[in-house]
Amino acid sequence: MQFHLDGFAPGDPGIADPAQRLAAPGSSGSVPREVDVLIVGSGPAGLTLAAQLAAFPDIRTCLVEQKPGPMLRGQADGIACRTMEMFEAFGFSERVLKEACWINETTFWKPDSAEPQNIARGGRVQDTEDGLSEFPHVVLNQARVHDFYLDALSRSPARLAPYYGRRLLDMQIAPAAAGDDPYCVTARLERVKAGAEPQTETIKAKYVVGCDGARSAVRASIGRALHGDSANHAWGVMDVLAVTDFPDIRFKSLIQSTANGSIIIIPREGGYLFRLYIELDKLDVGERVSNRNVTSDDLIAAAQRILRPYTLDVKEVPWWSVYEIGQRLCDKFYDVPEADVAQRLPCVFIAGDACHTHSPKAGQGMNVSMQDGFNLGWKLAAVLRKRCTPHLLHSYSAERQSVARELIEFDREWAAMLASSKGFDAAKTQDYFVRHGRYTAGTAARYTASMLTGEATHQHLAAALAIGMRFHSAPVIRLADARPMQLGHVVKADGRWRIFAFAGAEDPMASDSGIQTLCRFLAEAATSPVTKYTLPDEDIDAVLDVRAVFQQHHHDLAIEAMPSLLLPRKGRYGLCDYEKMFCADRRHGQDIFDLRGIDRQRGCVVVVRPDQYVAHVLTLDGHAALAAFFDQFMTRPAA
Amino acid sequence: MQFHLDGFAPGDPGIADPAQRLAAPGSSGSVPREVDVLIVGSGPAGLTLAAQLAAFPDIRTCLVEQKPGPMLRGQADGIACRTMEMFEAFGFSERVLKEACWINETTFWKPDSAEPQNIARGGRVQDTEDGLSEFPHVVLNQARVHDFYLDALSRSPARLAPYYGRRLLDMQIAPAAAGDDPYCVTARLERVKAGAEPQTETIKAKYVVGCDGARSAVRASIGRALHGDSANHAWGVMDVLAVTDFPDIRFKSLIQSTANGSIIIIPREGGYLFRLYIELDKLDVGERVSNRNVTSDDLIAAAQRILRPYTLDVKEVPWWSVYEIGQRLCDKFYDVPEADVAQRLPCVFIAGDACHTHSPKAGQGMNVSMQDGFNLGWKLAAVLRKRCTPHLLHSYSAERQSVARELIEFDREWAAMLASSKGFDAAKTQDYFVRHGRYTAGTAARYTASMLTGEATHQHLAAALAIGMRFHSAPVIRLADARPMQLGHVVKADGRWRIFAFAGAEDPMASDSGIQTLCRFLAEAATSPVTKYTLPDEDIDAVLDVRAVFQQHHHDLAIEAMPSLLLPRKGRYGLCDYEKMFCADRRHGQDIFDLRGIDRQRGCVVVVRPDQYVAHVLTLDGHAALAAFFDQFMTRPAA
Repeated sequence: MQFHLDGFAPGDPGIADPAQRLAAPGSSGSVPREVDVLIVGSGPAGLTLAAQLAAFPDIRTCLVEQKPGPMLRGQADGIACRTMEMFEAFGFSERVLKEACWINETTFWKPDSAEPQNIARGGRVQDTEDGLSEFPHVVLNQARVHDFYLDALSRSPARLAPYYGRRLLDMQIAPAAAGDDPYCVTARLERVKAGAEPQTETIKAKYVVGCDGARSAVRASIGRALHGDSANHAWGVMDVLAVTDFPDIRFKSLIQSTANGSIIIIPREGGYLFRLYIELDKLDVGERVSNRNVTSDDLIAAAQRILRPYTLDVKEVPWWSVYEIGQRLCDKFYDVPEADVAQRLPCVFIAGDACHTHSPKAGQGMNVSMQDGFNLGWKLAAVLRKRCTPHLLHSYSAERQSVARELIEFDREWAAMLASSKGFDAAKTQDYFVRHGRYTAGTAARYTASMLTGEATHQHLAAALAIGMRFHSAPVIRLADARPMQLGHVVKADGRWRIFAFAGAEDPMASDSGIQTLCRFLAEAATSPVTKYTLPDEDIDAVLDVRAVFQQHHHDLAIEAMPSLLLPRKGRYGLCDYEKMFCADRRHGQDIFDLRGIDRQRGCVVVVRPDQYVAHVLTLDGHAALAAFFDQFMTRPAA
Repeated sequence: MQFHLDGFAPGDPGIADPAQRLAAPGSSGSVPREVDVLIVGSGPAGLTLAAQLAAFPDIRTCLVEQKPGPMLRGQADGIACRTMEMFEAFGFSERVLKEACWINETTFWKPDSAEPQNIARGGRVQDTEDGLSEFPHVVLNQARVHDFYLDALSRSPARLAPYYGRRLLDMQIAPAAAGDDPYCVTARLERVKAGAEPQTETIKAKYVVGCDGARSAVRASIGRALHGDSANHAWGVMDVLAVTDFPDIRFKSLIQSTANGSIIIIPREGGYLFRLYIELDKLDVGERVSNRNVTSDDLIAAAQRILRPYTLDVKEVPWWSVYEIGQRLCDKFYDVPEADVAQRLPCVFIAGDACHTHSPKAGQGMNVSMQDGFNLGWKLAAVLRKRCTPHLLHSYSAERQSVARELIEFDREWAAMLASSKGFDAAKTQDYFVRHGRYTAGTAARYTASMLTGEATHQHLAAALAIGMRFHSAPVIRLADARPMQLGHVVKADGRWRIFAFAGAEDPMASDSGIQTLCRFLAEAATSPVTKYTLPDEDIDAVLDVRAVFQQHHHDLAIEAMPSLLLPRKGRYGLCDYEKMFCADRRHGQDIFDLRGIDRQRGCVVVVRPDQYVAHVLTLDGHAALAAFFDQFMTRPAA
């Protein structure tokens, strides 16, 4: 898709009339008086969280936003492979793939050795290593990511839309003890509307999540703070429509000049727009770049100096900003003090920039924030729906704080590397970039052992599906209709757990095979997590979704010989679900058993969380261990 | 995507609330008094035509439909590979890919040789041969195809929506001579609205297109008729939600029983729904099946008999119908009598079922009808916009009547083969199915030599891009950003012609290379079709879109050494379009030069029509021949 040729126009570029392009205006009227979850802030973290909660019509969520309406331009743009995998779960990856700019290669530029006042290309790197994800690394205006989420919210069972123009005034928190009012937070919001007096609204919530950015009012209200480096290095960022003879303008390019600093170029959606990150002067201690009165013309002039001998003729600047680099982090992402973790349950959380801030140039901020929302979303839903113990909620802070800490460390190193004052070294930078490709793709995050993350005892049965890391999809052929597809794409953001049973070398149709025995246990045993945690009026796969993967060609298997758990009868008619069984794709290089290091002789069970992370790897016959894993945190609600 | 589990629900299954799923209600108010094109009928042919015309804000189109609102269920469901390629040009292929059911294999069942009262699987065939198209064969409710078009119309520059509840009463046709009133048709419509008196509306149009089905009123008004076989074989068709132990229920299955006739199973979108085509008794001569009082219970009972020993427990029948097989065809698809073709221009056309009817079981009807609309659409737009001579319009009837004639012949043979009364032979049927795979995929249609279809003099330079056949896409790498993509996907339904210049073995950066010389000719020569037919205020690629494909790795080419025609400056800012140059994808088996038989030494020029058909293959240096080709039909409008 090509667009923005005659100027940047916000909204859906597939709609010819710019006046029709914008997202819906949000919820009208007053906020509800009582909700299950109050989300403060409709950025990437808040929208992801809302989208996850909106999958459940029985959860009442209120999403409030200080701004008067949907975002239109600017801010983040990087969408890592891992984020695309999550978008697939939320049902809009194909829209992003279509509209976004794909980052296929990154190029590295340094001073020309013959004429050091000029820059010259020093290297090129494929941006994402082959096989890292079935999705590419792309970039797209953050506003469009918001739009896709807003659309998903409006189409969801809960039909959510943000309440715009709401500022959090204060919150009263009364952590619930058993039997108490479950609405442990009372928040007051100021409603600001053009041409009207501000009004105060009061809302009670069981949980509050602050997704309200680096100056988070929710964070302040729970007495937490961001800790970290003071920043003394300033950068400008600018989206431009411009003419240049710089030949790599449609590649991500990291450029260092001899004397004028560094620049990073990010090509953008639509084929014409691009973004520049421009290094500015070092700040004095305690100085804020906002006090320097930098203009967009200053940024353009700096870019022109760095890009020499190439020219840059800027025609339009749809958005620009200046910022200081700083890496700051909260020590906990919720309201429970360290000393009280054992006896107190959290009811206020923070996510995204509210608990971690860093430089934008690794393209991580939006991605990590959305993963915060995804992590917290299914847990809150499970607790509210009485499917999991509320102790589960402790894992949110534990898991995401550790990811954020790694991000901060990575960003500190990367930002220093890119700042020429600290001795930018193109070759070293390129090497670092390659070595950390998995990290920037978002696929390196790993949760440590906990009640949600099993021990690695049987990890060797699925060597490349690491426990604690995201489930790495691979191609398969669906047994019932021979459709080639990605196994990972069955993991939708529906709050369900997946049990992938990879069959061993034996005939899976034999009644004593590992698959048949496992399915009999799951379907029939009183100790089975399927029987224990699924209610009588629910489909058999409503809580735990069991899928099987076979090594045989699909012509060599007969669905009628397979266990009934894998051909479940569902819904009010008892129709048969034919989408539970898969075969390895036997075309060259596509076999999931090879790609993911599955033990062909023994097979295994891979347990995948609702947020697509591998929770456990077990033997096919480890029925008791499988049951024990779920018994740690699952609960059965009163029918 | 899985849906329809608890019953068939019309509309967009991605929207949780069924009440929110339905398409917009259409245009309100009266039809306009004067339009460029009046389209009668909003089925697949009419919607495709409307979508093509709607790309041009300067064309006034009115789309009228007899039914009171958008279609909700039933009718056609087959979407051939070729149609998916066209949907890509219209911008919604990804929506169909996501929602449709993919047909990956077809299975063949015949009487069990041991127990002939039972059926047994006789064979399996991959449904689409490898490499036939970058798209799969899919099936989806025709109503959803309509919805995607309606959405495309509402997002288009012309922002069209059908006027529902309009029945064509009559038309007065005054074929225009030079200087006459260009509105050569005056049509009267009856507007029917629930609870109101019918009103009569009068509309004048330069062109009228009858997409109004087998009983077309437009066809009648131009005195044409369908000619062909009388039908004496009746079939029932039924969409069902049902439980069965027939193991191939998610494959397309062709089934013949010993004594109970034939059945065809088509799995459908959402994972639960499927369609049955059920052979009924032979009719008497002149008898209509509608007089037999067949019920849906009769169809179910017939299906149950044929499927023995398998059971079929039908839970819901969202739609069903009975029909006679007949193959009927119009001899011309417009109003000009054969004798007057030389001196008269057409102003009334018919498309789709209005000019060809046949059995639905080859899954061709909707596909061929949409291709009718695509073929006519760009031609009407080009003539109305004074970009092409109106003589071009004769080619519509010539090209599409010949395609329809082939379809009728194919269908006659195929329908006979499937009717057990004529001796259904599973092995022969399977063999025929395989041999005609390209035909049923829609990729075999071939237009014969005409002013739009060049002679095959240089066909050997692009052996597998046959002149007169659809441009068969292949993978390429975009030079400016290394993005892997399909070359064919640059052919959008925007009315433009494409000139694909495949470079020879030489260095394309050399100033005397074939590519550079061609681009200089196209950009500068007074005789160049680019200079001749592009207006001064238009972008250089507004009429003819020139793209180049190189054999080298993209690292070995420098965009800055390429001709300016391939880095055109466009729009109000004169921004650079970086999407005109591509390299062969050098991964194994993906090189477009190998795949499409391009002469590596000499290269060639491939001219592609706005409807994705290859119009001509020429030498890279055949500048005069290239110009002469376009001079046959292109015109330059007064600025």
